[in-house]
Amino acid sequence: MTSDLTAATGPFADDLRSKLPAATFRDMEARYLEEPRGRWAGTDGLLLAPATTEEVSLIVTAAAKARVAVIPYGGGTGLVGGQVSADLPAPVILSLERMTKVHKVDATENALTVEAGVILQHVQEAAEAVDRLFPLTIAAQGSARIGGILSTNAGGVNVLRYGNARDLCLGLEAVMPDGSILNGLSPLRKNNTGYDLRHLLIGAEGTLGIITAATLKLLPRPAKTGAAMMAIRDPQAALELLNMARAQIGEGVSAFELIGKTGMDFLAETMPEVRLPLGNPDWSVLIDLGLGASGDPAQALEDLFATAHEAGLVTDGVIAQSEQQRREFWQVRESIPEGNRRIGSVSSHDISVPTASIPDFIKDGPGVIGRIGDFRINCFGHVGDGNLHYNVFPMPGRARADHDSEREAIKTAVHDLVHAYGGSVSAEHGVGRLKVGDLERYVDPTKLAAMRAIKAGLDPAGIMNPGAVLRCAV
Amino acid sequence: MTSDLTAATGPFADDLRSKLPAATFRDMEARYLEEPRGRWAGTDGLLLAPATTEEVSLIVTAAAKARVAVIPYGGGTGLVGGQVSADLPAPVILSLERMTKVHKVDATENALTVEAGVILQHVQEAAEAVDRLFPLTIAAQGSARIGGILSTNAGGVNVLRYGNARDLCLGLEAVMPDGSILNGLSPLRKNNTGYDLRHLLIGAEGTLGIITAATLKLLPRPAKTGAAMMAIRDPQAALELLNMARAQIGEGVSAFELIGKTGMDFLAETMPEVRLPLGNPDWSVLIDLGLGASGDPAQALEDLFATAHEAGLVTDGVIAQSEQQRREFWQVRESIPEGNRRIGSVSSHDISVPTASIPDFIKDGPGVIGRIGDFRINCFGHVGDGNLHYNVFPMPGRARADHDSEREAIKTAVHDLVHAYGGSVSAEHGVGRLKVGDLERYVDPTKLAAMRAIKAGLDPAGIMNPGAVLRCAV
Repeated sequence: MTSDLTAATGPFADDLRSKLPAATFRDMEARYLEEPRGRWAGTDGLLLAPATTEEVSLIVTAAAKARVAVIPYGGGTGLVGGQVSADLPAPVILSLERMTKVHKVDATENALTVEAGVILQHVQEAAEAVDRLFPLTIAAQGSARIGGILSTNAGGVNVLRYGNARDLCLGLEAVMPDGSILNGLSPLRKNNTGYDLRHLLIGAEGTLGIITAATLKLLPRPAKTGAAMMAIRDPQAALELLNMARAQIGEGVSAFELIGKTGMDFLAETMPEVRLPLGNPDWSVLIDLGLGASGDPAQALEDLFATAHEAGLVTDGVIAQSEQQRREFWQVRESIPEGNRRIGSVSSHDISVPTASIPDFIKDGPGVIGRIGDFRINCFGHVGDGNLHYNVFPMPGRARADHDSEREAIKTAVHDLVHAYGGSVSAEHGVGRLKVGDLERYVDPTKLAAMRAIKAGLDPAGIMNPGAVLRCAV
Repeated sequence: MTSDLTAATGPFADDLRSKLPAATFRDMEARYLEEPRGRWAGTDGLLLAPATTEEVSLIVTAAAKARVAVIPYGGGTGLVGGQVSADLPAPVILSLERMTKVHKVDATENALTVEAGVILQHVQEAAEAVDRLFPLTIAAQGSARIGGILSTNAGGVNVLRYGNARDLCLGLEAVMPDGSILNGLSPLRKNNTGYDLRHLLIGAEGTLGIITAATLKLLPRPAKTGAAMMAIRDPQAALELLNMARAQIGEGVSAFELIGKTGMDFLAETMPEVRLPLGNPDWSVLIDLGLGASGDPAQALEDLFATAHEAGLVTDGVIAQSEQQRREFWQVRESIPEGNRRIGSVSSHDISVPTASIPDFIKDGPGVIGRIGDFRINCFGHVGDGNLHYNVFPMPGRARADHDSEREAIKTAVHDLVHAYGGSVSAEHGVGRLKVGDLERYVDPTKLAAMRAIKAGLDPAGIMNPGAVLRCAV
């Protein structure tokens, strides 16, 4: 807790009431003070929903003067408590929910500009309406807003081909911690005029300013899509198969997802309605292709299967013969998180390791967890990015509550193993308030010192999302 | 000039001599004090060529204590004077030329790690040796070093497909302005643990630290390549053709270069040995494809030509029937800068505009320049990135020296026009010392203020490449 922050009450709030339209002021609701997993709860705050960037600027300028904390709030879907104030004098909760304009969709430029409150799915739809693709795809796309997506540098299943959120952002508008407006909306692909503030604000989780609008990259919509599920020899074969696929098919490989037997077992147990096209092999992959009009995805996948089978990488496979069947394959992959929820994990981990280390990491995991107790492990995820969801479950007949006392030890064991492999303890969810300690434990001290210097330089009053990413100075 | 910097002489130099191997100290040569176009010349300095990151750290630590300026020096190919000290007490010229180790080339990981002094061409060769591609391609690749390439965020002809230097960098090691070592070498594709210092150092032109090593992204080598030259209706047709090509062929379009009649005229005049496959149309494009093993580039280009001809976008075309012919097409494109040199430009500009604005920008250019005098304009470049090389030449019979007094006015007219279209006055070369004034004129003031705050936070003594990018505080 920062000792010299003040609460968003009294004259501060009265002054804003005199300057901003009444619609800016909303009644506080529980959802603004909670996060999806119920780990954090804010206590109170002044909920403001400005309609324009100028109003955001006015609020932040006032907050900087009064040393009032400002917590930016997007769709509220973040999983690390970045959007929830804790241990602060009542902050401003600044919701972008009224800034939902789509300014410009330009198919020739392959770019669109949207306000930060636009929901991801609406961006996808706006792109589709001009026959373009905005490829970012995450589970929360129906409620996550672009400002939060960029602030946390969201990932998802198509990172292999299209990159993370930062790779899909061409320009930003933001309100800086002193209330000034950074005018960086631009579709330029090449612009070497000074430090790249866009990439600094992306992933800063609202601690260096509030993203108010963004120019995003559009891509050609693949004219032909295809998918296959293949049972593979082992995780090492997944890596070799991916490199083989990219050599044969180039960038047309849109997703390449690893699925383990445990995940399929959970589906069979909890969601028997989900058809498992390959039965339940030890390891399998879902490969998704998107090709241009001259491509032939089914043929490309058949050729890949033939070469990979010859090389001993795959033991079985099925290639989608229709869009309906492709969706069926994806349903398997997308049902795994729900299967996990129904079983009830003791601990879940959003981690990444160098892709070449995935097989060894998967081999070592049961050993380090086995030293704590008997558990089931469901490891699945985005092989091409080294991003695994690594979830630990009770043995059959036990409940997650039986293992409350072991949760912290499991987390540390997994994170230590990830760190030993040069991996990251937050691959896509960010740091928020949940992983501030992990950052201090695992991140290079020079990086932490530079982050603190940047934070102090840009936000000397320490008002922007205090306590997220970096611990508050006491 | 910063008033409180001191010269790299006397006790400061003596102290370093006692701590560093003799091989670190090199005799000053003219080339370290000049830049390729002869616009800037440093006066003097202490030339140091450390062999390790620890030695770089030792030098910078000493410089920070003594307030001695440090100018990082890579291949010396920069075109904006970022590598040349001017108006400073004798600085340390810190050359990375002895740090040329290729640490790790990993085809499974699709990554390699190199020291900052490695020459770009050697990176390309190291990638090729493991059947991978490092796609960055620039004219100076035989002498430019990776540290400088990343510090200036170099571009080149393949940005359309593969991005700028920053998009090809996965991790960085750097020595920060206080001498501490940032350990960020990592091949991770997904890592959301705090501010992205990599993207801050990339493009900072050595003003926030010295890049000492980098982990770079490798890509599949396209199994099949192809190229075509097509005469197009006008610049607008180039945009439509590019979008058509990407819809039909997907990401397989590696380069898409616009060439104007003036450039071809210059070639015919100064380099008649260069064969012009389409003769000399008003506007043409060079399209380069790289496809996976299952692709058929010649067929894809024929299909594209047919559709584009039908749509009235192209009037003539020739498709390479061999790798030899593809190289011939590229020779046309790559000879244009040499043709320009032989004619002798009055003024040349590395600019970008939103791609959709290219046709209007090209239409408006002659008007604003015509108000200054009679000139020939050679406009060519990377259409997909909006990055044009926009060069202004004397009329036949006149020499560039005849127009010395108009150069500044031309530069301002072009830059003002670029700015009016929301473009950038430095698309790929950076700011260096040449464009500090342009930055102040054209860049968003909030961005400039934030850059200064970051610089002050990370380099409070102001020793790192003072006067580059940001004007020294007096």
